[in-house]
Amino acid sequence: MRDAYFDQLDSIVDDLVAMTHEVQTAVSRSTRALLTASAEVAERVVSDDADVDAARERIEARCFELLALQQPVATDLRMLVAALRMVADLERMGDLSVHVAKVARLRVPDVAIPDELVPTIERMAAVAERMVGQAASVIAGRDVAAALALEESDDEMDQLRRSSFRRMLADDWPYGVEPAVDIALLGRYYERIADHAVSLARRVVYLVTGETAPAEL
Amino acid sequence: MRDAYFDQLDSIVDDLVAMTHEVQTAVSRSTRALLTASAEVAERVVSDDADVDAARERIEARCFELLALQQPVATDLRMLVAALRMVADLERMGDLSVHVAKVARLRVPDVAIPDELVPTIERMAAVAERMVGQAASVIAGRDVAAALALEESDDEMDQLRRSSFRRMLADDWPYGVEPAVDIALLGRYYERIADHAVSLARRVVYLVTGETAPAEL
Repeated sequence: MRDAYFDQLDSIVDDLVAMTHEVQTAVSRSTRALLTASAEVAERVVSDDADVDAARERIEARCFELLALQQPVATDLRMLVAALRMVADLERMGDLSVHVAKVARLRVPDVAIPDELVPTIERMAAVAERMVGQAASVIAGRDVAAALALEESDDEMDQLRRSSFRRMLADDWPYGVEPAVDIALLGRYYERIADHAVSLARRVVYLVTGETAPAEL
Repeated sequence: MRDAYFDQLDSIVDDLVAMTHEVQTAVSRSTRALLTASAEVAERVVSDDADVDAARERIEARCFELLALQQPVATDLRMLVAALRMVADLERMGDLSVHVAKVARLRVPDVAIPDELVPTIERMAAVAERMVGQAASVIAGRDVAAALALEESDDEMDQLRRSSFRRMLADDWPYGVEPAVDIALLGRYYERIADHAVSLARRVVYLVTGETAPAEL
């Protein structure tokens, strides 16, 4: 009976890792939709988000079942509460990918981003996608060192976002309001995906060390 | 002993209501900072956010203590898990108010919003603030009917946001890129504050009825 219980705890971790990879795919596809102006790829991100939501419901239901039936204490209790929070982070990351895809879809057949800004957006997207992948490794391996590396990637995201603002607000910005508004919001979406990846990693650090990271958990 | 336990559950609800009112004040002040270009009021929102974070930590610690020591089942367990999620919503709402305050501060001594758009932003802010207040009533009174009214306010927010985009992207928009980017992001911040208010109310509906709202919890 207890063995079945520990198997169930392990399988929740496996499911969290799988859900994180699903989200990573959504981030990657939404960026592709954006940079290739593909309505088809954008639609796929929007429709596949139902799978991310379903994964959240499935994992939540299992966490509640274990909380109610097994009355876990200490580490197991913390782990289940952390899992409930992590699925909420992951669902939001899925939603944010949908927001990126919808910006792409709104501008089809045009690419929403002026050529000159494509490298900055590509870099933001690559940083976000890498951070989601790193979060999956942190969860799978309970890897505290990898969690710290994630915080450094977050600094890079901040810098990219600031650089995009400098460009858009410069006097010689020739593209007008629409791409500026799109880039401001896209930057915000990628930044939030990155924030949630950091949050996932911090929850693992808290589980392993029992301590919250220097910043808020 | 059990009485003390029920008192503790009640006091968590009281603390959630108090924290919701703190957040409502932050939303209100950040809007005032924005519309009066007051660096002083903006600073106050930024520095008071530490109180919101502290309230979160305090409520979280008490939830974990009750989860670990009292081994609650069924309704009490659901209530404590809901409380943990609600403090996370509330902390984010505080952070979003800080984002609004920082936009205000960045443009001082100017008002970030062109006169013509002030009514729209005032309306967004009023809807968001009212929704936070309604969420406090829903939590305090476990009021399912009030929770449904909150979803309608959310529709109004969507409409305001769409109307601001129509104006900014019109050919005769005379204010350039900077205010458009500010308004797009401010709209996003108020929209997210409203979303979190709806999320708070849905968690109460779930506690009272045991069922998630038609949309995701």
